[in-house]
Amino acid sequence: MGGAVSPATTLRLKPLYAFRLFTDYRSPIKLLNPQKLHTTPIPRQRSFCSVVSAAISSGEALEKPKFDGVKNEQVKEFRKRLRVADIKGGVDEGLERLGETLVVRGWVRTVRAQSSVTFIDVNDGSCLSNMQCVMGSDAEGYDQVENGSISTGASVWIEGTVVSSQGSKQKIELKVQKLVVVGKSDPSFPIQKKRVSREFLRTKAHLRPRTNTFGAVSRVRNALAYATHKFFQENGFVWVSSPIITASDCEGAGEQFCVTTLIPNSNEGGESPVNAIPTTEAGSVDWSQDFFGKPAYLTVSGQLNGETYATALSDIYTFGPTFRAENSNTSRHLAEFWMIEPELAFADLDDDMACATAYLQYVVKYVLENCKEDMDFFNTWIEKGIINRLSDVAEKNFVQLTYTDAVELLLKAKKKFDFPVKWGCDLQSEHERYITEEAFGGCPVIIRDYPKDIKAFYMRQNDDGKTVAAMDMLVPRVGELIGGSQREERLEYLEERLDNMNLNKESFWWYLDLRRYGSVPHAGFGLGFERLVQFATGIDNIRDAIPFPRTPGSAEF
Amino acid sequence: MGGAVSPATTLRLKPLYAFRLFTDYRSPIKLLNPQKLHTTPIPRQRSFCSVVSAAISSGEALEKPKFDGVKNEQVKEFRKRLRVADIKGGVDEGLERLGETLVVRGWVRTVRAQSSVTFIDVNDGSCLSNMQCVMGSDAEGYDQVENGSISTGASVWIEGTVVSSQGSKQKIELKVQKLVVVGKSDPSFPIQKKRVSREFLRTKAHLRPRTNTFGAVSRVRNALAYATHKFFQENGFVWVSSPIITASDCEGAGEQFCVTTLIPNSNEGGESPVNAIPTTEAGSVDWSQDFFGKPAYLTVSGQLNGETYATALSDIYTFGPTFRAENSNTSRHLAEFWMIEPELAFADLDDDMACATAYLQYVVKYVLENCKEDMDFFNTWIEKGIINRLSDVAEKNFVQLTYTDAVELLLKAKKKFDFPVKWGCDLQSEHERYITEEAFGGCPVIIRDYPKDIKAFYMRQNDDGKTVAAMDMLVPRVGELIGGSQREERLEYLEERLDNMNLNKESFWWYLDLRRYGSVPHAGFGLGFERLVQFATGIDNIRDAIPFPRTPGSAEF
Repeated sequence: MGGAVSPATTLRLKPLYAFRLFTDYRSPIKLLNPQKLHTTPIPRQRSFCSVVSAAISSGEALEKPKFDGVKNEQVKEFRKRLRVADIKGGVDEGLERLGETLVVRGWVRTVRAQSSVTFIDVNDGSCLSNMQCVMGSDAEGYDQVENGSISTGASVWIEGTVVSSQGSKQKIELKVQKLVVVGKSDPSFPIQKKRVSREFLRTKAHLRPRTNTFGAVSRVRNALAYATHKFFQENGFVWVSSPIITASDCEGAGEQFCVTTLIPNSNEGGESPVNAIPTTEAGSVDWSQDFFGKPAYLTVSGQLNGETYATALSDIYTFGPTFRAENSNTSRHLAEFWMIEPELAFADLDDDMACATAYLQYVVKYVLENCKEDMDFFNTWIEKGIINRLSDVAEKNFVQLTYTDAVELLLKAKKKFDFPVKWGCDLQSEHERYITEEAFGGCPVIIRDYPKDIKAFYMRQNDDGKTVAAMDMLVPRVGELIGGSQREERLEYLEERLDNMNLNKESFWWYLDLRRYGSVPHAGFGLGFERLVQFATGIDNIRDAIPFPRTPGSAEF
Repeated sequence: MGGAVSPATTLRLKPLYAFRLFTDYRSPIKLLNPQKLHTTPIPRQRSFCSVVSAAISSGEALEKPKFDGVKNEQVKEFRKRLRVADIKGGVDEGLERLGETLVVRGWVRTVRAQSSVTFIDVNDGSCLSNMQCVMGSDAEGYDQVENGSISTGASVWIEGTVVSSQGSKQKIELKVQKLVVVGKSDPSFPIQKKRVSREFLRTKAHLRPRTNTFGAVSRVRNALAYATHKFFQENGFVWVSSPIITASDCEGAGEQFCVTTLIPNSNEGGESPVNAIPTTEAGSVDWSQDFFGKPAYLTVSGQLNGETYATALSDIYTFGPTFRAENSNTSRHLAEFWMIEPELAFADLDDDMACATAYLQYVVKYVLENCKEDMDFFNTWIEKGIINRLSDVAEKNFVQLTYTDAVELLLKAKKKFDFPVKWGCDLQSEHERYITEEAFGGCPVIIRDYPKDIKAFYMRQNDDGKTVAAMDMLVPRVGELIGGSQREERLEYLEERLDNMNLNKESFWWYLDLRRYGSVPHAGFGLGFERLVQFATGIDNIRDAIPFPRTPGSAEF
């Protein structure tokens, strides 16, 4: 087998490459006609991504294969795709590319035929903006316009020249030289031009990322996730994957999903005879025959596991899915959601609050800086003023006060609450909203030192004997976004607490070991990632903040 | 409540800050005695992390709280912790810090008492290296040495001066001025000086990150994960979280875990009466009463969901846990493992191979550059020559050949195989090893265009009607590391294939929709993250490549 492709080196779209791309796009290389794909295979060295054809035609780096005795070729070079975001995201919104010939691949959002030209808006998901493509009747492929193949939802391959746009919406547009319909869109395509409700789109979760709203949510979600990793990595935290399946039923049975192979598992939900489930003589499920030899559940939190790594590596974070089998059909609850749980060794509650604050400010700032177009969209269409709200969070000093002071504040408030306030009760969202939105005028507030009776067993007891070193971060509009605590590092306190709460100490043997062998003060917090997405996008319903929401009665897709 | 702390701004250890830290460490600030923590609460503004005390004592940025009407304080500033890696990882392995006074917090690895001084090796998990601390009898806290509180596993807080080391193992050491035992270690601490087996350490998964091997594996695993995100983000891919719980039982029932709330879930694995499970009249499990209203499973792959986002956003990747309920008790199988699954739109198999190659080279290079000390450790203790093996992968051109050519090559080989080779059979690992280790002398090899009968339904049929556009990447020692394919984008071919394989087309309605509405050629691959960790560390058993392995009969911790 003959000529090898360019060598497989690690890539990046270096400035020089970028330049070559455009010059090559202009050169008369033979372009693969994607329409033929339906009947002929894609030729080996003529990748659909014509970027590569370009590299080949430029005669660059053709090396002989190394192993002549055996038929083989080298793997071709990988290059970053030229995206609409790259074209329109330049210093001057693409004006610097005037006159360049380039290729856009994406999906048709709208087609508007006028007397002399047809406007085709193409989106490739890299940004909110479409590439407006202007096609005259002399362009190659115009018959596809005429025969109606180019409709909303169709995928297209368009080669054209960058020209300045007459319209006010964009600085540049593409004057089409050649258009190829890659895949037609059946007229039943459910997402047509007119706006459709987000409720409806939940039933089309496989297509909704092709809308402006869900495209923008996807990109902001991605940016928040990456910013999360960047923040912790830059600060020396190690990402730890806490287990998803767990046999230690630590926090609240009943809210956990059972994971089992005992129920006969016929394809497509057919018959599952109950009498085929192995039982003990007493008629109980015989867990010893289950996959793990005992009951196993989906995790509700990676914290306890995270602590084991924090007390070895000092600072760690988890970022993975967690689960609640709660029957809550609300706009704030999911059965499956992603959680971020950092854990800091040699740290107290102050360090914990400082870390949570710095983290939130970092990711908010990252999104404001890196998702400008999407944030403008949310600001206009989803929540007016969200950019100001987020800028405040990124810049304002966060305030902390104790639970006791917060209760005092609420008791003195001139506002009538539905739930009366009393020391020892959990704060309701009306209270939380009052504190952050009214008392502190839109400033994020951390409430700390909660009564121990309303908090989890692992939180460190304060000296007053009544409160624990817990904290909740409240933000305007969303309410509680982050919950954390310093962990009880004193073995005797922890054991006493487990006893008082009737928890089985033996099942916590490994957690208690952390207090037997070089215990250290440590603290951490948890943040529901989809709440953060809601907070950063203004999206009302949490089911729209995750690609495929799982809720009671709903696990479609 | 008085003076606020420094303002909550986003942080980073700026060069200026780093300088101030050291000068402040030298200044006579009042240091919190961590031993007292067991009886007194940590004072509000004297964080355990004395970094902050330093900031306060430097008189920096004391702002008045903003809301005078209400008791509150500002949240203090978060700063990166000074880690052993920061101290010893400098340009001259710490020599540039000679004379500085600083604080180390970590766990005692070894204590060696000599006539005049005691050597205490402290590890904080930030790197493999311990900080060697040399303590004379005049240092504060020496009584802790004398009374035996400082033993392997104990946590300590040590203040000292950086001096050049007499030993050959390190350039600097810490001359101890003050030592505080934060948490003693019970003499039963299972990880003492002498080496313990990795089998034994699996039963101590909560403590094993405190060993050299598992500390190093954790850091390299973290680096591989972060490099994964960096690679895809830099190339414009969007991270998509595919669902963990899924009701669409797409690939192979029987290998999936069932997720249910139907089995009475008593705490700590007590009684679960089978007759309490809701049944239909026919005696089958009544799935309509389950949480999701039908049988639900743990995902085996996020690919199909990933395709829905790739055909909207162009390039995406998933990185999340996947599950197999296979009863395989081998060193290569886990019931729960993390998977990376990129999906590229407007891409063919060549693009897919190019991406897989570039990805692997990127992450390998990242680890070689960023985890030098850990890689040296693996090179010495785990797999001799691993650094050369990985450097080859990062630099060599990958080779591709077709399955048909690979079979021919194997048939011509002078080697005797246990499994005879025949066109149409799956390649065994002995074949794969021969190809990559012998025929191509240690070069990674991609085999493509496999017989369609041994591959999944979604792979694109090649023009020969016999093969599909699938590829497996084989690497020396590990064998198959990556498997991918171009996906069948032609509706009629896909439907026919589902029919031929007796799969229910209706349950794939949304997957087929992607071919109805603007279908595009697309391709992707999957990579088991723990296999990658094995590949990059030389660790033999996959159970040592994940913090808390789940295998048949084992879901402890």
